[in-house]
This record gives sequence, C-alpha cells and structure tokens, in this order.
Amino acid sequence: MRPLSPDDQALDAAFAAARDAAAQGEAPIGAAILHRGEVIVRTHNLVETTPDPTAHAEILAIRQAAALLGDARLPECDLVVTLEPCAMCAGAIEHARIRRLVFAAYDPKGGAVDHGARVFQRPTCRHAPDIIGGIREAESKEMLQAFFKSLR
Amino acid sequence: MRPLSPDDQALDAAFAAARDAAAQGEAPIGAAILHRGEVIVRTHNLVETTPDPTAHAEILAIRQAAALLGDARLPECDLVVTLEPCAMCAGAIEHARIRRLVFAAYDPKGGAVDHGARVFQRPTCRHAPDIIGGIREAESKEMLQAFFKSLR
Repeated sequence: MRPLSPDDQALDAAFAAARDAAAQGEAPIGAAILHRGEVIVRTHNLVETTPDPTAHAEILAIRQAAALLGDARLPECDLVVTLEPCAMCAGAIEHARIRRLVFAAYDPKGGAVDHGARVFQRPTCRHAPDIIGGIREAESKEMLQAFFKSLR
Repeated sequence: MRPLSPDDQALDAAFAAARDAAAQGEAPIGAAILHRGEVIVRTHNLVETTPDPTAHAEILAIRQAAALLGDARLPECDLVVTLEPCAMCAGAIEHARIRRLVFAAYDPKGGAVDHGARVFQRPTCRHAPDIIGGIREAESKEMLQAFFKSLR
C-alpha cells in the first residue's frame, strides 16, 4: 500500500476535525496546517461554542500555527480545509502568506476564492497561495448537508 | 460646549488606541465598538507583538465584544476604526452582523469596503452594515504616514 501523501494526511486530519465539530453542534468544517510536510495544527469551526464570529477553522488554524512557529507570516505552511474559504479566511490566508491552499467542497454561497469576493484575484491582493479546490468534495458536501438537515 | 456624540467618543477611543499601537511598534490602526451608545471595547493592531496575522484592530474588537456580550452575533454593535477594513475584517463584520461601520481613512491598496474585494457589494454577501467612511481621514493618514516613514 502506498503511504499517504502529506496532503492526504492533512485532509484526513481536517475531515476528522470537521466530524468533531458536528459532534459538538458546530458546522462541520475542519482545517489542518502542514509545515514542511507535517501536520502541526488541526482545528474546526468554534463560532457558537466560543462564542466568536471569527472562529472559523481556518482562522483558528492560522492563529495556532503563528503562535507555534512564533511568526505572523507562514510562507512554509500549507492550509488544508474541508470547504472553500470565505472572504474573512481568504484575507487571513493572504496576510499569513500561506504557501498553498487545498480545499474540499466549493462553496458558491459563502466562498470567496472561486466565488463572491474572489479575494486572490483582485489586483490589490498582496499574496495569493497556490490553490487546489474540489478534493474529496462529495465527502465534505455530504457531511455539511447531513448536519444542516439535522438542524431542521 | 456640545457633548461628544457616541461616534465621536468611539473615534476618540480608536485614535487613542492607534497611537498606543504606534508607541509599541505596531501599525497605528485602532478600533472601538459601540453597544447601545457606549464604547465597550477599544483595540489596536497586534500582528507583530502576538504574533498573529489575524490580529487586526477590527478582529480583536469583534472577538472581545462577542466574548463580553456572550454572543457570536452583534446586531446592536457599531464598529469604529481608523482605516478602511481589509477583506478579512470586512468578512468578520459580515459574520458578526455589525450594525454600522464607521471608518476614518480610505485605503485604496488594502481596503475591501470601497476598494478591492468590495465585500459588502457582492450579491452573496449575507449582511452589510450601514457604512460611513472618510471621517477624520487626514488625521488617520498623517498618523500612518508618520509611522511608515519612521520605519525607513
């Protein structure tokens, strides 16, 4: 059996975090940060629990990685997340100088990478990561749909 | 003498916070949050000190207000800040359901309200505050210019 790539490991961590989020009543969105090929941070949405409207998985992951590495810029870090980032999180990725962004499901309503504000496509954008979207998209969508169905 | 309006008081608090930021080597950007006409939070940029790339004055103000009020949504809060918010902060304002946004200087390079990503003008934007920009703009610009000149 082929060993898991760093991206696969980070995606597994992000999906596990997303399941943890759902188990505690938070929207099932998880993230992980890879630093030199190793998962150093794994987070999930905590908006309602905290309460903190900025506590998206990506913001928490970036804050934790910056604290761990002692640097507000993370040019050797890749962010992996189960849903296309919103404008807030895309802006944080820009500020943190994240090297690569890998996300699972596209989010036509709330996403700001390939939809809406398209933060990284603005001429004023100071840093855009390399971007891979749509990995394990069905798995992420199913998890989100099951969660929001359970709320009704 | 006419008493200061809540907006004036919040702007004074935000400018005082911005001066505190500069005194500790952070970019001089300050924010305050008004809740039912009272300043309940006053913050400034802390990106380098923390270190945390998300530690803009607005993000810190929203996080503190949500913690104080015990709610991830702040529909009775107004955010006052010395510089036009970036995409990250505009996204946070959207998520927090901030009622009004008052900012001093426009920021053609980094702003995402009247420039760049124009977060609140996207059809997918879920909440846009009432917005007043350009109040005490010269004072904010002078402070920022003096700070960045001192770094050279």
